[in-house]
Amino acid sequence: MPLDSRSLAWATLAHKALPQRALVALLRQLGGPEAVLAASRAQIARTLAPPVVERALAPVAADALEQTTRWLDHPDHHVVAWGDDDYPKALLELGDAPPALFHIGRRELLMRPAFAIVGSRHATAQGRETAREFAHALAGAGFTIVSGLALGIDAAAHEGALGTDASTLAVVGTGPDRVYPARNRGLANRIAQAGALVSEYVPGTPARKEHFPQRNRLISGLARGVLVVEATLSSGSLITARLAGDQGRDVFAIPGSIHSPFTKGCHKLIREGAKLVETANDILDELALQRGDARAAAAASAHAAQVDPHPVLAAMGYDPVSVDALVARMQAAPESITAELVTLELAGEIAPLPGGYWQRLHRAAATR
Amino acid sequence: MPLDSRSLAWATLAHKALPQRALVALLRQLGGPEAVLAASRAQIARTLAPPVVERALAPVAADALEQTTRWLDHPDHHVVAWGDDDYPKALLELGDAPPALFHIGRRELLMRPAFAIVGSRHATAQGRETAREFAHALAGAGFTIVSGLALGIDAAAHEGALGTDASTLAVVGTGPDRVYPARNRGLANRIAQAGALVSEYVPGTPARKEHFPQRNRLISGLARGVLVVEATLSSGSLITARLAGDQGRDVFAIPGSIHSPFTKGCHKLIREGAKLVETANDILDELALQRGDARAAAAASAHAAQVDPHPVLAAMGYDPVSVDALVARMQAAPESITAELVTLELAGEIAPLPGGYWQRLHRAAATR
Repeated sequence: MPLDSRSLAWATLAHKALPQRALVALLRQLGGPEAVLAASRAQIARTLAPPVVERALAPVAADALEQTTRWLDHPDHHVVAWGDDDYPKALLELGDAPPALFHIGRRELLMRPAFAIVGSRHATAQGRETAREFAHALAGAGFTIVSGLALGIDAAAHEGALGTDASTLAVVGTGPDRVYPARNRGLANRIAQAGALVSEYVPGTPARKEHFPQRNRLISGLARGVLVVEATLSSGSLITARLAGDQGRDVFAIPGSIHSPFTKGCHKLIREGAKLVETANDILDELALQRGDARAAAAASAHAAQVDPHPVLAAMGYDPVSVDALVARMQAAPESITAELVTLELAGEIAPLPGGYWQRLHRAAATR
Repeated sequence: MPLDSRSLAWATLAHKALPQRALVALLRQLGGPEAVLAASRAQIARTLAPPVVERALAPVAADALEQTTRWLDHPDHHVVAWGDDDYPKALLELGDAPPALFHIGRRELLMRPAFAIVGSRHATAQGRETAREFAHALAGAGFTIVSGLALGIDAAAHEGALGTDASTLAVVGTGPDRVYPARNRGLANRIAQAGALVSEYVPGTPARKEHFPQRNRLISGLARGVLVVEATLSSGSLITARLAGDQGRDVFAIPGSIHSPFTKGCHKLIREGAKLVETANDILDELALQRGDARAAAAASAHAAQVDPHPVLAAMGYDPVSVDALVARMQAAPESITAELVTLELAGEIAPLPGGYWQRLHRAAATR
């Protein structure tokens, strides 16, 4: 896309990789990413602790930033950042949502309901076939299939969803310009054409071991639920499933022979509370049920009212509201409002709704 | 065994098949099975409602009774009835424990910890092998393996446990002199030699469809837990598993391929709360855990004390007690005490302990 100053500012901040709390504080203080980059040492020192001040002020290496701007100089490459209407609301629930995503392909997929399918790299042929079938069926039902572009189950899940309208979204642990493993280059290209590929790492970032668990939180975080198709007891999919549980996502697992090492991880998850599934409909039924529960809970809590002086909460009122509406009501920059929303979300005061809306959580207060 | 008058009386009462509540009332009133049979119409009419009076007084057909006495005229054939030290305590928990069991083989197996393994008649070769392996391992750990002498999983479970000391116990839905299906005659003979075979139906009773679900409650009732190895969605094993759950027994199931019809029943059970197991140790660990919980709960409730005037409860005191000890303390017939124990058990006042002991349940009373 044409590189506007705001996207460049977010990309530059991504290179600085500030702690999220520090970035949120700066955005609240200063209003937006360009203002953060233009701020004086004195302004920044008013907000951050001394060691982080140096990190915020340190210039980004010119060649690294140039690599990023060169990458962004392509019509299908984007920075999607806090404050953008299509920044995935589901990620804002995480508490450590990346401020900017480097994105290739169809941006509207970021706003769709998503479902993650993951599993062992060394999967059986039957396991890969099962992943393909479930991905195809769930994507056919409207869920964009999220996975990690690994060999085995991940690749099969992406392939199963390609060709459907909901398609597939690959979350990679490298920069968006790298493909790991290289063997999946063809698949990555097809996903970039017909789906989307996202990374929180700047272009040029190589595969690093410590990035993959970080990446896994985005796979589960983007999704309404996670299905583990085949997993050994040492599979990284178990980390994704644990993160999904921590994030309040539904975890599903496919059982198999007690004599296969590739089912032991799935059986462990089922024993720990994951839902055993035999068909894609099992998942669709459960997700429909959960949504019903959430609606019922919201209806029940809507009876509770409380007085709260926070200006964003006051501006939100008691109906679902978009960031645009808040910008208009509060006459503030979208980025600073997003930063406030993240803070309020972390405090459990608000929750994201489908379609880019937010709503206050009305607690059954002891003061009633 | 030599046919004593008490065994003959229990066998005769088995032919009458009175409702359990009526039999309990008669035993309480009259003291024992011989007294029940010797009672006058007037005595019985004081205790039972008119239609049941006729049933209690109707004579048993001589040829049917003779078939039973002929069957009992064998050193390995027994009647094991309420009040016998080796009547299975686990069955008394059921609320509808059969007053008398027709039994072939090793009587002491009735007093041992037992575990049930059941499944589809039309099982896969792998399923039968799994049943054999689990039965062998659990019997090796001291659990007598209970099953229903059906083809498929049942037969494999019996076979796996034969040859261990804990051995196996077949609960049949026919009279003890019949083998259904006939193809299992050889297996039934081996079980009668090295294990035990029991039935609540009098000798000569043919296979009747309605008896099998009744029989299933004894399979689960005799056992501390039930493992379903393979089951289609229409398998009778699902009935056994449901009864086991109702009886407070642990239910375990083995998962398998989502593409096999023989695992669908197991997967249904797991979704409904059965424990997924991959090895016999999974079961042994869980049973050990449950026993620990029960001990802890008993210790906690031992602090609660209450005043209760029921003479059996008064005679029991606050320590585990055998029926023999109660007979001595109360100077009453064992059968009438067993009838009282059944009543108190149904009322939740007492619970059976391993080794033929009983203990009061000390409720955390609101009066403390």
